[in-house]
Amino acid sequence: MKITLAQLDYLIGDFKGNAGKIRKTIEEARKRGSDLVIFSELTVSGYPPLDLLERKEFIEQCRQTIDELAPACTDIAAIVGSPSINPAPEGKNLFNSAFLLYDGKVQDVIHKALLPTYDIFDEYRHFEPNTEVHIIHLKGKKIALTICEDLWDEQPIEMEFGKSRLYTFSPMQELSKSDPDFIINIAASPFAYNRIGVKRAVFVNKALAYKMPVFYVNQAGAQTELIFEGGSMVVNPNGEIVAEMKRFGEDVQDFELEEVMSEMKKISVSPPDDYIPEVFDAIILGLKDYFGKLGFTDAILGLSGGIDSAVSLVLAKEALGASHVHPLLLPSQFSTDHSVRDAEKLAKNLDVSYHIVPIKDAYSAFDKLLRPFFMDLPFDVTEENLQARIRAVLLMAFSNKFGYILLNTSNKSEAAVGYGTLYGDMAGGLSVLGDIYKSDVYKLAKYINRDKEVIPENILIKPPSAELSPGQKDSDSLPDYSLLDQILYQYIELQFPVDEIIEKGYDAETVRKTIRLVNMNEYKRYQAPPILRISSKAFGAGRRLPLVASYD
Amino acid sequence: MKITLAQLDYLIGDFKGNAGKIRKTIEEARKRGSDLVIFSELTVSGYPPLDLLERKEFIEQCRQTIDELAPACTDIAAIVGSPSINPAPEGKNLFNSAFLLYDGKVQDVIHKALLPTYDIFDEYRHFEPNTEVHIIHLKGKKIALTICEDLWDEQPIEMEFGKSRLYTFSPMQELSKSDPDFIINIAASPFAYNRIGVKRAVFVNKALAYKMPVFYVNQAGAQTELIFEGGSMVVNPNGEIVAEMKRFGEDVQDFELEEVMSEMKKISVSPPDDYIPEVFDAIILGLKDYFGKLGFTDAILGLSGGIDSAVSLVLAKEALGASHVHPLLLPSQFSTDHSVRDAEKLAKNLDVSYHIVPIKDAYSAFDKLLRPFFMDLPFDVTEENLQARIRAVLLMAFSNKFGYILLNTSNKSEAAVGYGTLYGDMAGGLSVLGDIYKSDVYKLAKYINRDKEVIPENILIKPPSAELSPGQKDSDSLPDYSLLDQILYQYIELQFPVDEIIEKGYDAETVRKTIRLVNMNEYKRYQAPPILRISSKAFGAGRRLPLVASYD
Repeated sequence: MKITLAQLDYLIGDFKGNAGKIRKTIEEARKRGSDLVIFSELTVSGYPPLDLLERKEFIEQCRQTIDELAPACTDIAAIVGSPSINPAPEGKNLFNSAFLLYDGKVQDVIHKALLPTYDIFDEYRHFEPNTEVHIIHLKGKKIALTICEDLWDEQPIEMEFGKSRLYTFSPMQELSKSDPDFIINIAASPFAYNRIGVKRAVFVNKALAYKMPVFYVNQAGAQTELIFEGGSMVVNPNGEIVAEMKRFGEDVQDFELEEVMSEMKKISVSPPDDYIPEVFDAIILGLKDYFGKLGFTDAILGLSGGIDSAVSLVLAKEALGASHVHPLLLPSQFSTDHSVRDAEKLAKNLDVSYHIVPIKDAYSAFDKLLRPFFMDLPFDVTEENLQARIRAVLLMAFSNKFGYILLNTSNKSEAAVGYGTLYGDMAGGLSVLGDIYKSDVYKLAKYINRDKEVIPENILIKPPSAELSPGQKDSDSLPDYSLLDQILYQYIELQFPVDEIIEKGYDAETVRKTIRLVNMNEYKRYQAPPILRISSKAFGAGRRLPLVASYD
Repeated sequence: MKITLAQLDYLIGDFKGNAGKIRKTIEEARKRGSDLVIFSELTVSGYPPLDLLERKEFIEQCRQTIDELAPACTDIAAIVGSPSINPAPEGKNLFNSAFLLYDGKVQDVIHKALLPTYDIFDEYRHFEPNTEVHIIHLKGKKIALTICEDLWDEQPIEMEFGKSRLYTFSPMQELSKSDPDFIINIAASPFAYNRIGVKRAVFVNKALAYKMPVFYVNQAGAQTELIFEGGSMVVNPNGEIVAEMKRFGEDVQDFELEEVMSEMKKISVSPPDDYIPEVFDAIILGLKDYFGKLGFTDAILGLSGGIDSAVSLVLAKEALGASHVHPLLLPSQFSTDHSVRDAEKLAKNLDVSYHIVPIKDAYSAFDKLLRPFFMDLPFDVTEENLQARIRAVLLMAFSNKFGYILLNTSNKSEAAVGYGTLYGDMAGGLSVLGDIYKSDVYKLAKYINRDKEVIPENILIKPPSAELSPGQKDSDSLPDYSLLDQILYQYIELQFPVDEIIEKGYDAETVRKTIRLVNMNEYKRYQAPPILRISSKAFGAGRRLPLVASYD
């Protein structure tokens, strides 16, 4: 049996486009003699459709698309994901389903049982959990067809008060009772740099536990903030990964079941602790798909001479091309000469053209308007924010006039502690680095410079500064980033209580101050742009905290 | 049996403050001879705690608070809501529970079975649904203690493809088999102007169905965008509402069970179709609690001479006091004389002091900076947005310098179609009118003027205009609001498909254009401030749609 894994990128709600892509892939696989093409979770709608699932016309289009695809599967079978209607009068009105198309019609449908409701996932919001599973049959084979979590036993939540928790039901254990020949898992599983190894382990462990091959098909491409890395896999009954498909791009590959069972040997996969190249690729895919799917081609960003905007510019250039990125240098009275010089040097290294727009005159105009009211009150965060906001006004004017998307270049450390100006440097259509701690931004810069100096060395070695007041350095008001990021990771990703972090030997006052900053700045992050998510816990839709609460 | 309903306002995570309030209420009720005090859902933590439920230390504080409250209940009983830990190794690790405290200890605990996962609700994200219910016993009475949805049979979702859907399980039907004496329902049920009658009907219908009294205790007060109207109720076995507690405020009342069973007669309640006074009260409560809970006292807002900022100013003054609201008049070259005149007249009517800061000079400064790049490209939305953004920069400067919160004054119609400037008039810490369609903003203005002219009549009668280009009117680019709002309500609240709206007789092109605007502006709303929610479907956390999708 020849099995084709189709790891594709979909546009949510683009039924015509998605169906065209699916049909073409089936047709090409048929020509290659494939018996079965497997697509990822919620293929026809794209994932995640979110509350579009509440719209009648959306569900009707899903149904129609499945009906239209079935006739394309005559001497080839396909497994296609789609929402389907729950005929019972109770419970949610939809299932998250996978359709087996063959012989020109829908041969079988299975529904997902374990619906993720953590981080960015809200599947129980729309879907009824399935409670009865069954094996599907195709050309004499019995197949355990599972959708994403249905193959897992443990809930993928980092924080369960110190212990991992089981699901209430194991669809795979049930399916195994029917003695299937192999396992299929279709998924829409987003990238997280700190879960690369965990994900592979799931399939390896299941192949071993059930002594049968696993064919895993993941979605590729980015959906706004979510980046699906692809990385579809085939694991043999010995628990060896015998194939891993393209990471961060579309890929379609054929496999002979019989070869997987016997001949195919373990391949070596990228080590999960070397995550910086993967983060680099992930962000580029995220940028490409955001622009591409919106029909935009060009980006604008403020280039300060600091590391964040430097790395953002490199990533944007990789994603969009040198002629499609438009950095503005927006020096204020507090900008140092080396900032402008470093920024210019970077732009030249990248062969990217730029403009310089000093903001002094705009600043003076505001100062004159405000003076009668502020009188002789001292220079404070107001005037710092004013500079950042003037820059945003200029960047947005270019964005509006020329149809460029403004890229936000804030990093996760800043976003965490609120070290940024709302409607100023926090502005943008998409945040490039908002899920990347400052320490990792430096690692990205070094990775970018691995062969030659792309980012001027001076940008990597000078102390970080917002340059919004004379001689200002980030370290005046924040702990060193190497320390800060450790505290933040333990609080945000690992969800350790403050006391437990302190017990690990960190300075109590530093920890408390840091965490206080994290909590009191929920209100700023509420209005931040969507952030390209590369970790298991990014700011945004996957982290939902009250703006107004007592966090002490 | 004397039963006390305690409808209180909590601060999320303020265990000390919440416990103090609970203890004081128990103590006072005891002095009045009460047998049982009933508090609302998730009392000790406040509702909604969101992802704070994922934090170990938060759950530990919930547990401690319950332990500390128990000794206060010696010759009086209390029902207190709190998360509790699920001892099973499977499923979610928490329950949404209600504790019966009596005789100095926890006498019983029940868990919620029907966990809402629609609109703003994410309870299944954190809680395991209960599957086995039991009656609680107190002083010879058998009580059917239910938490919010557990008393309902139908899912409260407007849109279920034309039919209402049942829950998979009816805890109340199960409980009724034990022949209870009365029903208690504790809830944290936010206000929605279009569900006032629906909510009352639930309790009336259940009292009738089970022929026993219902004691309903709701949370009071606002939690950022969510406004809990209180309105706790007692319904007699004949399905008559015999008491409705304060709407939009804290209230504690005692009821004799025996009187509820026999003597107490049906009261008249405010008619649900007269919702404008309720919306008025709701917004004021929302503003009061947002400022109060954050420890802020003063608001700033831009006063344009239009109806939205006028109504917002009146509401802010009601909530915060005349000396705590600081309107800025920020006329541009396109502002009409009457705008400034009308705004000044309104401020004077309200006895609110204001400043006028013409933005022309700031505009000229930007124009000069941008001219070399824009050259002779025509005046367009760029320059319109520029004015709105200059205003936001000025307002935020005041906000930063003086510690005022900027109020956003955009209405729901504008937010829906993207008629607003990101980082301009869309800025603010809280949106006052963002869930109120323009047509209802006019109704609010008329309600405000019901006794005397508070808002100058000219503001009510002139055609709406953003005044960002010469002679501009909203109707140049949008349908009349009366028509627009009907289309929007059917698309957003009722989730009707485009074709069905057109079939009702609306002009097809107008409908399609409107809905296209709604869908293409998800990206703007993503960065909007939290919006005080007064309907069943506000923009924000309760409406989750892809930013990048094909909506055709």
